[in-house]
Amino acid sequence: MSVIYNRVALIGLGLIAGSMAHAMRRAGLAGEIVGTARSAETRKVAAEIGLCDRIVETAAEAVEGADLVVLAVPVGAMEAVTEEIAPHLAPGATITDVGSVKRDVIAAIAPHLPEGVHFVPGHPLAGTEHSGPRSGFAELFDNRYVLLTPDPGTDAEAVAKLRAFWEGCGANVEEMDADHHDLVLAVTSHTPHLIAYTMVGVADDLRRVTDSEVIKYSAAGFRDFTRIAASDPTMWRDVFLSNKDATLEILGRFTEELFALQRAIRTGDGDHLHAYFTRTRAIRRGIIEAGQDTDAPDFGRTHAKPRKAEEAEG
Amino acid sequence: MSVIYNRVALIGLGLIAGSMAHAMRRAGLAGEIVGTARSAETRKVAAEIGLCDRIVETAAEAVEGADLVVLAVPVGAMEAVTEEIAPHLAPGATITDVGSVKRDVIAAIAPHLPEGVHFVPGHPLAGTEHSGPRSGFAELFDNRYVLLTPDPGTDAEAVAKLRAFWEGCGANVEEMDADHHDLVLAVTSHTPHLIAYTMVGVADDLRRVTDSEVIKYSAAGFRDFTRIAASDPTMWRDVFLSNKDATLEILGRFTEELFALQRAIRTGDGDHLHAYFTRTRAIRRGIIEAGQDTDAPDFGRTHAKPRKAEEAEG
Ligand SMILES: NC(=O)c1ccc[n+]([C@@H]2O[C@H](COP(=O)([O-])OP(=O)(O)OC[C@H]3O[C@@H](n4cnc5c(N)ncnc54)[C@H](OP(=O)(O)O)[C@@H]3O)[C@@H](O)[C@H]2O)c1
Ligand SMILES: NC(=O)c1ccc[n+]([C@@H]2O[C@H](COP(=O)([O-])OP(=O)(O)OC[C@H]3O[C@@H](n4cnc5c(N)ncnc54)[C@H](OP(=O)(O)O)[C@@H]3O)[C@@H](O)[C@H]2O)c1
Repeated sequence: MSVIYNRVALIGLGLIAGSMAHAMRRAGLAGEIVGTARSAETRKVAAEIGLCDRIVETAAEAVEGADLVVLAVPVGAMEAVTEEIAPHLAPGATITDVGSVKRDVIAAIAPHLPEGVHFVPGHPLAGTEHSGPRSGFAELFDNRYVLLTPDPGTDAEAVAKLRAFWEGCGANVEEMDADHHDLVLAVTSHTPHLIAYTMVGVADDLRRVTDSEVIKYSAAGFRDFTRIAASDPTMWRDVFLSNKDATLEILGRFTEELFALQRAIRTGDGDHLHAYFTRTRAIRRGIIEAGQDTDAPDFGRTHAKPRKAEEAEG
Repeated sequence: MSVIYNRVALIGLGLIAGSMAHAMRRAGLAGEIVGTARSAETRKVAAEIGLCDRIVETAAEAVEGADLVVLAVPVGAMEAVTEEIAPHLAPGATITDVGSVKRDVIAAIAPHLPEGVHFVPGHPLAGTEHSGPRSGFAELFDNRYVLLTPDPGTDAEAVAKLRAFWEGCGANVEEMDADHHDLVLAVTSHTPHLIAYTMVGVADDLRRVTDSEVIKYSAAGFRDFTRIAASDPTMWRDVFLSNKDATLEILGRFTEELFALQRAIRTGDGDHLHAYFTRTRAIRRGIIEAGQDTDAPDFGRTHAKPRKAEEAEG
């Protein structure tokens, strides 16, 4: 793979930007990677582990002379960052973001950009529950989808270049309309996260009653929810506040279906339950066949050892 | 480890009974393992893979001379199986079950048992989304909890022996009251499963609109739900019908919390959302420290390759 951008500026150095840095290096996609983050602490860690070729103190400085600028901060911080960097963007540069919501983020970024800069909004559908400058890894995007939602009038070459860049990072790239993106993601990501947070919150209330039972006996299904509900609170607050309409729409459908199942339980309608639970199996098969998850039982996870025991050994 | 029961009879040969057979052999806990299942097909597969020492055609035959009888069929089938085997149980034998619900299962089994047989209800908190005679493995119970819910009047020696047996299978054993079990499991397992089924059902409806997008773009959180919602429909129908009260109670709390979060999204109350999402993180840490899950990002799962590509290679 050869160099696609001579200088890439990463604004924000968390899970996504960090993984992009690793993936770019793996494939040699960038002449130079310049990075910056809000806090001195994150910049220090990033410098220590050599995450970028150069770490600078401000976003304004980071974008100087960059031909690709990546905004990798929480959705709610996009506007302020854009305002800071706009006067410093190089003419002809491409600016993209990795925000989990598109319509609101576009509305926050686009109005501040100068003429002659190409804005190609994006969203890599890949993540883990971890965050921060140490959490990234080169394989995060391998065989995952990146959705680009450019305005139809956007420079075709700029879009093609960003597509090649993400493909170089291991991803499959698709383009779609921003509103459609927000609806699909409300289904595949935002509503599931809200539900997981809610269920874990309910258990947390009950935990006060039953001591640590909820934790000890979590293996029967609940612990999967806790992984999702361990994601970054700021990121997710921003996602729900900015993808309000689509999330509320899907939540409405969800509660409707939940009430129907609840009613089937109450009335003892086993046929309804059985039919519903049979239908949902097919989706899992589809996901495995599409290469989007492992078929290994329980995600192939190995049984964790109690930390106590490890400490005793070490 | 030495032999604890001279003859163990497994009624039902699915994930749980199969894993018990493997675990018993690993530790040499049984003199002989006799197994049976409802269908000729399952018995044939079990015989082919040597799951038990002996496979017999009927449950009545299987329990002859057994000093431990394990009922490992769906919760709704426990009563009929008990009626079939009751006249054939050896005096002094212990009978246990592995059903995911305890109060209803006890009510289905206990009245049919003859005098002189020790009934110790149980529930291993371990499972995967797979089922059938080929799905079991010896490590399933390692470091997992098994909950026993014997009546206070039960023979202490019989309980102690079953406890030693499960510990020999790798598990941690605890005793509790059946009603309390059903409430705790409604939180850690039954309600999460219902919610996952519901969310996947909503997505399935939407998939008809958006083609296969829900599958392609599942990696952002949704696919974890699909694993849970791929579990056996019969097992789960039975669980909800028999743990009706506790499930409905926890569902009530869940919808209450969900509506509060929904309202916070609608009114733009970011502080409420942020506080809620911060609180739920602590539970995840507790689970990892208790050795009940891995700390590896995304459960340490490896990225699946598309099946198409594998087929092309093969
Ligand atoms: N995590 C996922 O699963 C995932 C997946 C796809 C897309 N995304 C999107 O990717 C973006 C980044 O997420 P991430 O997971 O990489 O987050 P992360 O690991 O938490 O990193 C966030 C970065 O943004 C900086 N930041 C936070 N608040 C800021 C503010 N108000 N102003 C300026 N900088 C700020 C942080 O700086 P400090 O470290 O100095 O605080 C940090 O470097 C978000 O828009 C998110 O929606 C996330
Ligand atoms: N899977 C879990 O995660 C999990 C965890 C803890 C406890 N449990 C409990 O363990 C029990 C067994 O679950 P499993 O996962 O091992 O199920 P499984 O893999 O589906 O196996 C169920 C077994 O029960 C037999 N069976 C089904 N319906 C029957 C009926 N009406 N009469 C007689 N036999 C019948 C099946 O026979 P055929 O193969 O011939 O159809 C099969 O051998 C259930 O009570 C469940 O609640 C399950």
